[in-house]
Amino acid sequence: MITKEYIAESYKKIQDEITVALEKLDGQAKFQEEQWQREGGGGGRTRIIQNGAIIEKGGVNFSAVHGKLPEPIKKAFAVEEDEFFATGVSIVIHPNNPHVPIIHMNIRYFELNEHIRWFGGGIDLTPHYVVADDAQFFHRAMKEVCDQHHPDFYNDFKTRADNYFYIKHRQETRGIGGVFYDKLTPENTGLSEQQIFDFSCDLGRAFAPTYSVLVNKNRNLTFTEEQKSWQLLRRGRYVEFNLVYDSGTKFGLETNGRIESILMSLPAQANWFYDFKAEPGSAEEQTLAVLKKGISWI
Amino acid sequence: MITKEYIAESYKKIQDEITVALEKLDGQAKFQEEQWQREGGGGGRTRIIQNGAIIEKGGVNFSAVHGKLPEPIKKAFAVEEDEFFATGVSIVIHPNNPHVPIIHMNIRYFELNEHIRWFGGGIDLTPHYVVADDAQFFHRAMKEVCDQHHPDFYNDFKTRADNYFYIKHRQETRGIGGVFYDKLTPENTGLSEQQIFDFSCDLGRAFAPTYSVLVNKNRNLTFTEEQKSWQLLRRGRYVEFNLVYDSGTKFGLETNGRIESILMSLPAQANWFYDFKAEPGSAEEQTLAVLKKGISWI
Repeated sequence: MITKEYIAESYKKIQDEITVALEKLDGQAKFQEEQWQREGGGGGRTRIIQNGAIIEKGGVNFSAVHGKLPEPIKKAFAVEEDEFFATGVSIVIHPNNPHVPIIHMNIRYFELNEHIRWFGGGIDLTPHYVVADDAQFFHRAMKEVCDQHHPDFYNDFKTRADNYFYIKHRQETRGIGGVFYDKLTPENTGLSEQQIFDFSCDLGRAFAPTYSVLVNKNRNLTFTEEQKSWQLLRRGRYVEFNLVYDSGTKFGLETNGRIESILMSLPAQANWFYDFKAEPGSAEEQTLAVLKKGISWI
Repeated sequence: MITKEYIAESYKKIQDEITVALEKLDGQAKFQEEQWQREGGGGGRTRIIQNGAIIEKGGVNFSAVHGKLPEPIKKAFAVEEDEFFATGVSIVIHPNNPHVPIIHMNIRYFELNEHIRWFGGGIDLTPHYVVADDAQFFHRAMKEVCDQHHPDFYNDFKTRADNYFYIKHRQETRGIGGVFYDKLTPENTGLSEQQIFDFSCDLGRAFAPTYSVLVNKNRNLTFTEEQKSWQLLRRGRYVEFNLVYDSGTKFGLETNGRIESILMSLPAQANWFYDFKAEPGSAEEQTLAVLKKGISWI
């Protein structure tokens, strides 16, 4: 059986690899690191990159925390056990250029009283402007990782991402989805824990090369004030999703996590324009038209 | 017994009075009105003011909606009844100048199956920079309205505001509080419904003159880029409160309210700076020091 210490150490290495790759990709900004300890147990390494050539604000966080599960989360999980351990890497990148997509990744491992052992995670892409070729490239990359581990993973996790990254009150998806999985165990996958863990590491390692292709393809595109303004509006939607719906954010806030690490997912700037309506036929309207569940990009 | 139609009509008139007063106060921008209908029953009049001399973005909304209460709200209210009616006026004003405070007001009446009848509401002030004189003036104005109706109202509702307008994950209050009340009935106040209703109208009518004093005192103060930047950070906290904790926002989202009317409370622009620390001895630090529960401003 693989241990939680082994998993945590491996995820930490993935954090290292990703921060190196993102600094290289940005070419200008460097990560600043904060090491922190959680009062209830455990701690983490928060790495933030700001004001880069590409990245306006981004975070690549590693944490390994443990303690007593708060009552509301116990109820939500429908479990009696309440000694939790959680470790993972979480990333959100907000780029300067509206033609470069926002991206989010998370791989995590969760234990309750040492005998409930779950893997979760995913990668989803939030382009300010959806470009079909890029969406297809991204989903193909996700499918490739999934297919190496289980024939059902991509379809299953793609559907879960559509359902999870959904801004219910706007009736729109956050972006073009990707893959999302939760509570994976040998029982519900037919894989060993080692195999599920290997899948999570491969997904983590696919993050940087996949995002690099999308960044390099779009980083030199010029943009107008209107396109910047649309980016700020889409970031407002991102804020709405993260604060109203995101389980990771809720879990962090309810377990007294480190606030600045949890809310690193929020952009440097977001705008709300009252009752914005996209011009008929505009690129903004075309993007809104595909922020829907169930679109097959491949 | 006063009827819900009478209450709704009276609140509508208060909306009219307040929009007239705010246009006069701003001196430049005019409200734009949207009349809307809710699919499940009822509708409202949303009035938005933008890009004014004083007000960057603000809303003064009236609504009177009815329908079936969704299951999660029934549970939260611990009631069996599920035919609701709700009417009220809701205001949030985000000014341009960081020396002018954000303000929020709400007066509302809520009915369940016609026999549960509750009044709720409040006014709270969110200065970007807390000025003791202004805080005292504001709380005195709130106390004056309360004292005319019940000797316990101010102290009780001031404490409730401190507890309600609290950003738990930041361990700071949203602003300097004010008054907040909920589920007022003849049983828990010793007043008649007419008297509780009269209190709510007096509170509504105190809004514009009280805010006008605070605006006129501060509207011509100049400000630096750093002060503007602090305002945008405080607006980020306002967004966090409204999306994570505010019951009115949750109620609106869960009952399929009109999204643009509910989220008019969000500012035109908000910023998040990673791990902001106020300079020791700065005005920002002094403000943070009083964003605490239990401060007596009078």
